[in-house]
Amino acid sequence: MSEHSKFLLADSQIPPVWVNVLPDLPEPLAPPLHPATRAPLTPQDLAPIFPMELIQQEFSTQREIDIPGEVMDIYRLWRATPLYRARQLEKALDTPAHIYYKYEGTSPAGSHKPNTAIAQAYYNKRAGIRRLATETGAGQWGSALSLACQLFGMECTVYMVRVSYDQKPYRRMMMNVWGAEVFASPSQHTNSGRAVLAAHPDSPGSLGIAISEAVEDAATHDDTNYSLGSVLNHVLLHQTVIGQEAKLQMAMAGEEPDVVIGCFGGGSNFGGLALPYVLDRLAARKDGRKAPRIVAVEPTACPSLTRGSFAYDFGDLAKLTPLVKMYTLGHDFVPPGIHAGGLRYHGASPLISHLVHLGEIDGKAYTQLPVFQAAVQFARTEGILPAPESSHAIRAAVDEALAAKEEGRHKTILFCLSGHGHFDLAAYENYLSGKLQDYAYPGRNIDEALADPTL
Amino acid sequence: MSEHSKFLLADSQIPPVWVNVLPDLPEPLAPPLHPATRAPLTPQDLAPIFPMELIQQEFSTQREIDIPGEVMDIYRLWRATPLYRARQLEKALDTPAHIYYKYEGTSPAGSHKPNTAIAQAYYNKRAGIRRLATETGAGQWGSALSLACQLFGMECTVYMVRVSYDQKPYRRMMMNVWGAEVFASPSQHTNSGRAVLAAHPDSPGSLGIAISEAVEDAATHDDTNYSLGSVLNHVLLHQTVIGQEAKLQMAMAGEEPDVVIGCFGGGSNFGGLALPYVLDRLAARKDGRKAPRIVAVEPTACPSLTRGSFAYDFGDLAKLTPLVKMYTLGHDFVPPGIHAGGLRYHGASPLISHLVHLGEIDGKAYTQLPVFQAAVQFARTEGILPAPESSHAIRAAVDEALAAKEEGRHKTILFCLSGHGHFDLAAYENYLSGKLQDYAYPGRNIDEALADPTL
Repeated sequence: MSEHSKFLLADSQIPPVWVNVLPDLPEPLAPPLHPATRAPLTPQDLAPIFPMELIQQEFSTQREIDIPGEVMDIYRLWRATPLYRARQLEKALDTPAHIYYKYEGTSPAGSHKPNTAIAQAYYNKRAGIRRLATETGAGQWGSALSLACQLFGMECTVYMVRVSYDQKPYRRMMMNVWGAEVFASPSQHTNSGRAVLAAHPDSPGSLGIAISEAVEDAATHDDTNYSLGSVLNHVLLHQTVIGQEAKLQMAMAGEEPDVVIGCFGGGSNFGGLALPYVLDRLAARKDGRKAPRIVAVEPTACPSLTRGSFAYDFGDLAKLTPLVKMYTLGHDFVPPGIHAGGLRYHGASPLISHLVHLGEIDGKAYTQLPVFQAAVQFARTEGILPAPESSHAIRAAVDEALAAKEEGRHKTILFCLSGHGHFDLAAYENYLSGKLQDYAYPGRNIDEALADPTL
Repeated sequence: MSEHSKFLLADSQIPPVWVNVLPDLPEPLAPPLHPATRAPLTPQDLAPIFPMELIQQEFSTQREIDIPGEVMDIYRLWRATPLYRARQLEKALDTPAHIYYKYEGTSPAGSHKPNTAIAQAYYNKRAGIRRLATETGAGQWGSALSLACQLFGMECTVYMVRVSYDQKPYRRMMMNVWGAEVFASPSQHTNSGRAVLAAHPDSPGSLGIAISEAVEDAATHDDTNYSLGSVLNHVLLHQTVIGQEAKLQMAMAGEEPDVVIGCFGGGSNFGGLALPYVLDRLAARKDGRKAPRIVAVEPTACPSLTRGSFAYDFGDLAKLTPLVKMYTLGHDFVPPGIHAGGLRYHGASPLISHLVHLGEIDGKAYTQLPVFQAAVQFARTEGILPAPESSHAIRAAVDEALAAKEEGRHKTILFCLSGHGHFDLAAYENYLSGKLQDYAYPGRNIDEALADPTL
């Protein structure tokens, strides 16, 4: 085993392809349904808001899809990202476990989000689109798409969930520096936003509301497409560079993970790290190869995987998106204003939901106080200041390591540190001064929410 | 020439030594003088506030000093840092020049400052010191030392210049996450601070004032030493990893710089990049080898190199430090509250001052509006959001590239991008909204300031 703590790859080792699990699923995904007709969605149904190349990726049966050269040129500005062994954290925990983390915070936008933002901007630009509209929670996605549009000479409009817009002014300013226009959502700029504000003038917003606004913006402007930072198959596909790199780096470290962990909001950083390992699990069924447990970690305040229903639901509040089968808390659920704004989504990636349903992935939920406790411990041992979202994965990794100590056995843990927390320091301040509070899941009758007569 | 835009080094290529220019200076430095006796300073004079190993480095005549293993273990968390060729910026400028930048913003604290913070904490810990006191301007240095102390299990007290404390609350919070206590300077915690507040209750502070507070804190507590983030020989020595790596990386790129550029406050990132090239210039006098021009870029609001006097002066307002011969605006000069807080220092590294005086280094000054203009252009082409301090170097690099275009000739430009601007977004916001103003150097009779009867 290597004595190193950092595992780097040369530019030539950046994976040349994205890997697609769709052709290897033991059961196919339930088809998305048209929001009006309830018929299975056709590629043409998505054409008003997505370019055809991304639509093809959404339904692709190819095992590998080449990363275009123009996308790779930009990936290379910060990729391959480093894999670290958290030796100082292990020492502080006094655990026999080995903890590895793949750090995606070295991108200019500070998270894994540019992996798909760059690809999406590229395909839209090729399709002649002039502007992209999107939503953002914590601002990680919005800043990534602002950067991507700027690099490809496109305009960008971001609907930013109100609670994050207020908590994280620096994220909004960063998007402005990269040339984007940013509206707090719900906004007065769309019918969807105006309807929410009419009923709830003080709405903190949610990803579900912001998605409605961005989709409406794209659908009502010919030169504008919509871009989503998570949930969809093609988004998770672009993120598989994370897991492919991590596998090469774990091989350099001479170890195989026993457990693979990612934080979970819509599923993009989680899927990015986990899907290449899911392929190992699926292959292991045939050849008996060793494959890791895979754990998705979500906030207790918004527990779609652990408390939601596996059912057809809309991706947004205004029911503009297709119906997809996923773990959902109901499309009208507005989560409490926790600091991990990127995890405040009522639903979940249909692909990850399907794999949870099949038992290939486990869900786990934490309240935010133990998450921040782990975040501070991580910052004080490993140096890097983590994002609150990513810190859900740290919490779970620490608990896996403490369990290994309890059981007195070795364990190799791999998690995705999806971004830095440079714009989340107000949350840390609240935590350190004892002002941060925990939110339980308020609970609700999801069946009743899904019994909405239009569903 | 390589077609690559990024040049990485393996861990094994991180330089194993710091390089020292003192033995190769064509004329020796003027000695520092004791603040009370005016006799040349002895190592023992510095022992109350520095550990002996750092004092020895301050006066060392060794050409190379080994980097301790414990320091190297931490360096490796983010070093070697990347060297980039700014191809997108070159394209936007339509210049025949090639622009390279060494990016130090990948450290956990976001700048080059940990290169010396880690080393200083290490030597102080070895000397049995329990706590370090320091000053910080923009917060880059304070956060680096907070991190370093945390990693070595030491306490850290930071006196943060008031104007930056107010402009950059996130920097202060970051230091708190790493366990440091932070006071706005001038503070009520020291005699020096109280004296300033008595005369100027609304003082915006300055590095000169904050240094007085930190030195007083260290001098009046047995278990506490003082730590300085710039100016001194041993600080610049630790930073020479930057220039040594850059030289290896420029060789990978197959180019030699015609001009080497760094922003200049006290001299630490500048010296880190420039000193290995200064050695080339000194060698070139003997063997006729090609060596680059070297340019230090400072703010017009605080122009020590371009408008200061080369004279003996104190490093701080309260005259607690030794007298050193340097370019100075007078130790009682309080610069306007520009956003590049890290460059608001009345003096300059004696070593860099000496080299400027000898004609080996040129000084250049800019007001902040053209600096921010270059910063935004850089963020929109290269992706990385630069610190306002570092953006002084970008401005000068852009002007060198535009001059090359004007003259229709090739030029290879290398600059240090010393840190990211994630905590400076309020300044960007002011710039983008047209609210940022330029400050001219107010001008003053420096001879009169230095004619202070105690000097």
